[in-house]
Amino acid sequence: MGSGWGDKVKVSIFGESHGTAIGVVIDGLPSGVKIDMDEVYAQMARRAPGNDRTATPRKESDTPHILSGMLDNVTTGAPLAAVIQNTNTRSKDYGNIMNAPRPGHSDYTAYLRYEGFNDVRGGGHFSGRLTANMVFAGAIIRQILQKKGIDIAAHIYSIGEACDEPFEPTGISDELISRLNKEKFALIDTSREDALRSVVSDAAAKGDSVGGVVECIIQGMPAGVGNPMFGGVENVISSVVFGVPAVKGIEFGSGFEGSKMRGSQNNDEFFYDENGKVRTRTNNHGGALGGITSGMPIVFRAAIKPTASISIEQNTVDLTKAENTTLSVKGRHDPCIVTRAVSVIEAAAAIAAINLI
Amino acid sequence: MGSGWGDKVKVSIFGESHGTAIGVVIDGLPSGVKIDMDEVYAQMARRAPGNDRTATPRKESDTPHILSGMLDNVTTGAPLAAVIQNTNTRSKDYGNIMNAPRPGHSDYTAYLRYEGFNDVRGGGHFSGRLTANMVFAGAIIRQILQKKGIDIAAHIYSIGEACDEPFEPTGISDELISRLNKEKFALIDTSREDALRSVVSDAAAKGDSVGGVVECIIQGMPAGVGNPMFGGVENVISSVVFGVPAVKGIEFGSGFEGSKMRGSQNNDEFFYDENGKVRTRTNNHGGALGGITSGMPIVFRAAIKPTASISIEQNTVDLTKAENTTLSVKGRHDPCIVTRAVSVIEAAAAIAAINLI
Amino acid sequence: MGSGWGDKVKVSIFGESHGTAIGVVIDGLPSGVKIDMDEVYAQMARRAPGNDRTATPRKESDTPHILSGMLDNVTTGAPLAAVIQNTNTRSKDYGNIMNAPRPGHSDYTAYLRYEGFNDVRGGGHFSGRLTANMVFAGAIIRQILQKKGIDIAAHIYSIGEACDEPFEPTGISDELISRLNKEKFALIDTSREDALRSVVSDAAAKGDSVGGVVECIIQGMPAGVGNPMFGGVENVISSVVFGVPAVKGIEFGSGFEGSKMRGSQNNDEFFYDENGKVRTRTNNHGGALGGITSGMPIVFRAAIKPTASISIEQNTVDLTKAENTTLSVKGRHDPCIVTRAVSVIEAAAAIAAINLI
Amino acid sequence: MGSGWGDKVKVSIFGESHGTAIGVVIDGLPSGVKIDMDEVYAQMARRAPGNDRTATPRKESDTPHILSGMLDNVTTGAPLAAVIQNTNTRSKDYGNIMNAPRPGHSDYTAYLRYEGFNDVRGGGHFSGRLTANMVFAGAIIRQILQKKGIDIAAHIYSIGEACDEPFEPTGISDELISRLNKEKFALIDTSREDALRSVVSDAAAKGDSVGGVVECIIQGMPAGVGNPMFGGVENVISSVVFGVPAVKGIEFGSGFEGSKMRGSQNNDEFFYDENGKVRTRTNNHGGALGGITSGMPIVFRAAIKPTASISIEQNTVDLTKAENTTLSVKGRHDPCIVTRAVSVIEAAAAIAAINLI
Repeated sequence: MGSGWGDKVKVSIFGESHGTAIGVVIDGLPSGVKIDMDEVYAQMARRAPGNDRTATPRKESDTPHILSGMLDNVTTGAPLAAVIQNTNTRSKDYGNIMNAPRPGHSDYTAYLRYEGFNDVRGGGHFSGRLTANMVFAGAIIRQILQKKGIDIAAHIYSIGEACDEPFEPTGISDELISRLNKEKFALIDTSREDALRSVVSDAAAKGDSVGGVVECIIQGMPAGVGNPMFGGVENVISSVVFGVPAVKGIEFGSGFEGSKMRGSQNNDEFFYDENGKVRTRTNNHGGALGGITSGMPIVFRAAIKPTASISIEQNTVDLTKAENTTLSVKGRHDPCIVTRAVSVIEAAAAIAAINLI
Repeated sequence: MGSGWGDKVKVSIFGESHGTAIGVVIDGLPSGVKIDMDEVYAQMARRAPGNDRTATPRKESDTPHILSGMLDNVTTGAPLAAVIQNTNTRSKDYGNIMNAPRPGHSDYTAYLRYEGFNDVRGGGHFSGRLTANMVFAGAIIRQILQKKGIDIAAHIYSIGEACDEPFEPTGISDELISRLNKEKFALIDTSREDALRSVVSDAAAKGDSVGGVVECIIQGMPAGVGNPMFGGVENVISSVVFGVPAVKGIEFGSGFEGSKMRGSQNNDEFFYDENGKVRTRTNNHGGALGGITSGMPIVFRAAIKPTASISIEQNTVDLTKAENTTLSVKGRHDPCIVTRAVSVIEAAAAIAAINLI
Repeated sequence: MGSGWGDKVKVSIFGESHGTAIGVVIDGLPSGVKIDMDEVYAQMARRAPGNDRTATPRKESDTPHILSGMLDNVTTGAPLAAVIQNTNTRSKDYGNIMNAPRPGHSDYTAYLRYEGFNDVRGGGHFSGRLTANMVFAGAIIRQILQKKGIDIAAHIYSIGEACDEPFEPTGISDELISRLNKEKFALIDTSREDALRSVVSDAAAKGDSVGGVVECIIQGMPAGVGNPMFGGVENVISSVVFGVPAVKGIEFGSGFEGSKMRGSQNNDEFFYDENGKVRTRTNNHGGALGGITSGMPIVFRAAIKPTASISIEQNTVDLTKAENTTLSVKGRHDPCIVTRAVSVIEAAAAIAAINLI
Repeated sequence: MGSGWGDKVKVSIFGESHGTAIGVVIDGLPSGVKIDMDEVYAQMARRAPGNDRTATPRKESDTPHILSGMLDNVTTGAPLAAVIQNTNTRSKDYGNIMNAPRPGHSDYTAYLRYEGFNDVRGGGHFSGRLTANMVFAGAIIRQILQKKGIDIAAHIYSIGEACDEPFEPTGISDELISRLNKEKFALIDTSREDALRSVVSDAAAKGDSVGGVVECIIQGMPAGVGNPMFGGVENVISSVVFGVPAVKGIEFGSGFEGSKMRGSQNNDEFFYDENGKVRTRTNNHGGALGGITSGMPIVFRAAIKPTASISIEQNTVDLTKAENTTLSVKGRHDPCIVTRAVSVIEAAAAIAAINLI
């Protein structure tokens, strides 16, 4: 299996890129929660393809149609199911994939896994399009979390070698959360936008692509949630976040950089703040110690590999003829998916968070 | 919950550092597998505390006692349960922890999670001692994997800023696997041992500690295993590996470095090798595409934070008096747990791998 | 949660009786299986409402629309999702339910569980209409099982006090399986049809309803499947079958009758048959010993309570006024759902069986 | 797998009848609960073998030894692990089982499932002895439930054709609960004891055995717990209760008898009681409607087959010689396990109940 996740709030995703529809079933939501559907659509627009400077979603194809679990925008407690029709598909672009798997894509591994019966058009069930379901589920769940005082925000931490300013790990302002939650090109330091965009346009100009890192913060989680060992905050979050295509790494708090430190640098000292609350002065632990939340923000970064589909010619194999061949991937492809991945990572964080509390 | 993991082979770990015993139940093992118990003890000796130059385990305290699931060292198919008695405990060293949580430790978060009823002695259920169970389970599972041609090896990738040579990601020799599987200070380039050891001894001399990175390879996994989205290789492995205390990051293949690359660099081109098998020339994907194995080795790196227990005085809080205080952690503590973590990460990889196939 | 089930092949059901649509996601199906959709529709027609003497389904409302997981009627391995639109709804019949919960129904308990936010129209998520999803899933799964030599059949064991002949527990003919699989009023001894129908019509004439028992056989299951304790055949089957509304009991083999026997009567003696295969002469164990299949048919019976909706006036409460009141349930209601439950129980058996092997 | 159960409080059972020890790990218990260990031992004594007129447990062999999860009899929140040593074993009695599987036992099916590698001595992992673990877990969980006002009691409903009085399904007195919880031969109408005992002694005199039914009540469960479809009260309870060896049927409320009724008889009418609480006048629904608790007691009955081990000669097969043979089972065997099953069914109910709330 694999396309479902969660033991308290279970998200089951279905669909193939060029099939009839994609969709999601969310089981275990609390009943009686009023959902702001405009906010849901706004989150989906952030992920939607197209020029990110304009926030116009492709309405026809990407509007989720709710089948169950809501009455007058209030959750009923029954599984909430939604589908998004697939209309704007150009499957002829992918005619050669079955023969020649795209390097860096799941074409070859899906071919093995499903013995050639998988729907190869547009990547089938492995298509990034499926993340629209995740953003939909995340957008609903985030509203439930917000009512509990839990906010989630993410930004483009880096594209290629170009970086945004990192989150202040001990906490960020509500204003910053609110602004980032509206952005399609989410940066803390907006003055760096041109620098980051030029990394993408340089790659695109050569028919190439580029990767990056998304940083995410979950603020307001109650302290003391999570479980030991395999039920810890890091285990839970990583098992959802690696469900976002192209994620190849995750780190919490000081992460890999912290592994180079000494204990005296990396340890976060406790203190009583002015309200008598225990906090840490720094947040190298990224909000979890022993897998359990400390009350400090949960901070993690996800490494996104460069888009695998590039128009530069690459070597690959022809599985039908059993011989080596070359391939230049045609069709619409983002030269960098980090921008759109921001809202997907936030959604993944939301799905994880609601299952932790 | 959280102390159990796995849906095919389920590993349930119990115990507290200074309780009567720690142990593990492994449910779902195939029946009829002959286990080489000497090899199991050898793996446990690699993780065992004490001078890593001598491979003498503390026999009395660390020998697992098998209660069920084996007859004459052959698995019966019933849950395999083993306990390790806790004998060599010096709980007076930890007398002050309940009041003053150690920075970087789970003392404070466990106190919140269990409302003060957790066994604080030696870290209780969060103690690194519990990883002996994981190594035991991993050592048995690795023998089952080996019969299927699947080998696992790990090494000290780095301690502080000092690095070993990385794995050749397209595959390593059986000799190297075999050698690393015997080492307590596992390095590919053994000439760097003194350099890495001196990082540890420098930190230790100051009452400080240091972190590092463990790199692990799983070689011989069949191609086409794993599931889409949340059931992928990376999700499964990370959800186990973050169960190893002190792990704060994980990356597969080119990982975070890959996020800085262009697609043309990071994509691994396919080709038919001399045996007519599809392979990739490079292995930046770390053995999984779309969460499914490609047949190339699975390669990942786990970031280990510096040991939280240090004798340098640190600021913390006194939870009883509700005031700020200072703490200098006494007792036996490794200045660097990366060395011992090598066998634990291998065990985590084994537990993940058997649940993937 | 609760509306999803299965760890190998997971069936997730959604929908509310008078919402937009109901549907199901089946995750974990093998890829490359050609599905005979006419047979799927035929199975759904057996469960469909309307005069059971004519097998005409209400085409518009009850035809499942497949959204993903199939290409040209062949499974792709991705989650198979299907929806059935809700069109023929007459929600005014249920206008008084929210105030006055119907005795024997989930109205009151759902009201408590979802704090009044559940969709009460037609029973909402608890409606028998949702079993159309189960039959759809079961019909697909049965075709996969049939390719492995596993057949499932059920019949009306009893309605009220009137009984059909029981299954021969040591095995039934392919002809009988094939015939029963086509029936809307499935009896082994068809000469008893009038007698059983008259029990229903007698109750209906008085505005009352009647219950009954469905007996089911799973033939051709390989011997040696199932797991000890909580993973046994009986645990697995019962945990699905109690998901069929109105089921209040289940028994395997000689069941409750066997509890009155002596061991010498109830034990099934082993013998080698003419093909050198171990069998039992009787099948009081119902195909499973210690939770594991013996190779004999799995035989179970499910007790179906009388339809709760009756037009006879009953006492109930008015939850709005907090006072006692009376209720006579209006609308279309089957005086006996045992007939239609036959195909639902078969579907439940199929869902259980594919998760056992 | 199968030997573990539960998603909130997970019970993992291990051990083989004649291995070193049997035991259980309970993960997910709340921390800070003081456990009365004498009461735990008292419950275990009710299940313990030996003359039920004397409540003397076999101290050495059956006392659980707690390894973790408790400090000074207070739960720490870490997995609670306990082992019971196997000392009083007489494995020579079972010398012939491997060749000649006992009719009615799991010998043959376990042989198939584990390809002959299972520990056959005393039934191995399938032995009734393993239920001591369940009673231990149940006894601890029941104390937690009692603090929430939830009580569980069971009695011998019938042995062979001889019956006790049934529970008053709308509720029983605290006195009756308390008395039954202490009994080794638990009857509501104690005047029937001789009649029921004589059924057992008659069977025993002939080297035969006899089955029966255990009825169980869970009183004080909050209304509105449970989930729809596969997560309902009946699904959850049955999936645990069928984990008790020899259980072949389960029914809730009016169960199979209710299937013969009319709706007007079987429906339970709602009314406001003198405290303004909604109740039902009868309890044919057995405490759950639509899988969700109504606030009325949960009442169920489990059919226990006659003990499979009898000394009367039976036909079976010799698996080594591949020929038919006969067998007379030697060794200590209860002619009727219904008496001892009472406390095991209560424990199963407790394990289910804590996972429902």
